Amino acid sequence: MQEWIWVNGEPGTKVAVQNRGLAYGDGLFETLRISTRGPVLLEYHLDRLQDSARRLLIPIDRSAMMQELNAFPGCRRPGVVKLIYTRGTGGRGYSPANLDHPTRILSSHPEPAWPAWHYEQGVHLHACRTRLGRNPLLAGMKHLNRLEQVLARSEWVDTDAHQEGLVCDTEGNMVEGVMSNLFFVVDEIVQTPLLANCGVAGVLRRWLLEQFQQLRMSVQEVEATPTHLQRASEVFTCNSVYGVWPVASLGELQWAPGSVVRRAQALFQQHWL
Amino acid sequence: MQEWIWVNGEPGTKVAVQNRGLAYGDGLFETLRISTRGPVLLEYHLDRLQDSARRLLIPIDRSAMMQELNAFPGCRRPGVVKLIYTRGTGGRGYSPANLDHPTRILSSHPEPAWPAWHYEQGVHLHACRTRLGRNPLLAGMKHLNRLEQVLARSEWVDTDAHQEGLVCDTEGNMVEGVMSNLFFVVDEIVQTPLLANCGVAGVLRRWLLEQFQQLRMSVQEVEATPTHLQRASEVFTCNSVYGVWPVASLGELQWAPGSVVRRAQALFQQHWL
Repeated sequence: MQEWIWVNGEPGTKVAVQNRGLAYGDGLFETLRISTRGPVLLEYHLDRLQDSARRLLIPIDRSAMMQELNAFPGCRRPGVVKLIYTRGTGGRGYSPANLDHPTRILSSHPEPAWPAWHYEQGVHLHACRTRLGRNPLLAGMKHLNRLEQVLARSEWVDTDAHQEGLVCDTEGNMVEGVMSNLFFVVDEIVQTPLLANCGVAGVLRRWLLEQFQQLRMSVQEVEATPTHLQRASEVFTCNSVYGVWPVASLGELQWAPGSVVRRAQALFQQHWL
Repeated sequence: MQEWIWVNGEPGTKVAVQNRGLAYGDGLFETLRISTRGPVLLEYHLDRLQDSARRLLIPIDRSAMMQELNAFPGCRRPGVVKLIYTRGTGGRGYSPANLDHPTRILSSHPEPAWPAWHYEQGVHLHACRTRLGRNPLLAGMKHLNRLEQVLARSEWVDTDAHQEGLVCDTEGNMVEGVMSNLFFVVDEIVQTPLLANCGVAGVLRRWLLEQFQQLRMSVQEVEATPTHLQRASEVFTCNSVYGVWPVASLGELQWAPGSVVRRAQALFQQHWL
């Protein structure tokens, strides 16, 4: 199947070595699932991109970005589109002054296929030793400074044993999965880690929180360590590409998929696939 | 004057958009001053690069890297050479498994010229509001995850008023300059912030600490907040490109260059320029 790459709206495969995304991880990215109905959660991806660009002082024209995505062939057939948005090309030195021409990179990727049991029985989490540093300045953004995730993901190679990893911050609080967000149900309250100090504020996490609230379910963003999961009746992970997976185990702890994860899966399926 | 760029040992100006340095800041860099005597502190740069690559699980052949630097035309005339060393080209996803072909980028830059007063009277520090997150996993390395430095450097644009910024970590401890390390003399002890939780372990910082110890001066790596500088008799910054600058002021605090900073400047001058 054909794949496409655009750099600043034109076909291309490379960027200058002076690009700030390479020099300093000075930029952002979004990974979009494209279903038969089009890009999934597109407005939520653009909300996060726009808000993060503002925090990083990178100029962004949201409607032009939207137009470019709509024109990109990869957004018009099922698969995955990755958008990288950097501060553009600059000289040596950290200063972002006078850098007003961000670089936009779009690439298309095949539709991923996961085993049905990830959705049915659920996945097994590796407990990562890698900790996330805490810095409210960068928390929530899907920025290009991702060494912590690379190191966390390097901890397991046997993808039959573990399909995702649980990462905590340097204080021992649960934050997220390496490539997903985490939910758990305790005393019939749907909980997810607060992301005030680190972690990526996933677009599907946001959408699910809104859906749960509209359904009048009790939801809470909490600060908690992994021992909190001993009290959980169900645990699940989400990301906007694969959707929602029950968590079957973390070390000795085991869970069966419950009514909340099944509802989350049904909501995602109905609205987006 | 001619400048050169090499990508993986060959002339080139671009990298693939799939490069991990761009995707995740998954790599390292070194900025070398080239004096008329050749690369300054070359072995120290290679020590840090090699040690950091090991910590990030990126393969490195130190002697091949050394050979390539020696062959690079930019290393044979006064100026600056920047080396970017990434995990290479990879697909979507954080996993670093099976990525055994790092990317090496060398670029030459003109010899920078700073006003003489930076060396004589000293520079004025801006007190950055940007804080550094604490994570021992990444502390000390000169990796490509530098958004904190970009944001810290964005805080001042008037380079007549401020020539460098002082950054603290999220606990309020002094860490470093945005592009340099920091020394201060308190009760005749030469002190520099401990870099166990964040900050870049500068090669000139290391060399100066060794020189001071050989001269039987009292040196200490300390954890301290900026109020500690009220007790300092002298303050200075260093980086291997510009050398050593006295600090003339930080807000209301002022210092005159003292004997320690003059000695540090003389040592750097004698050994490397």
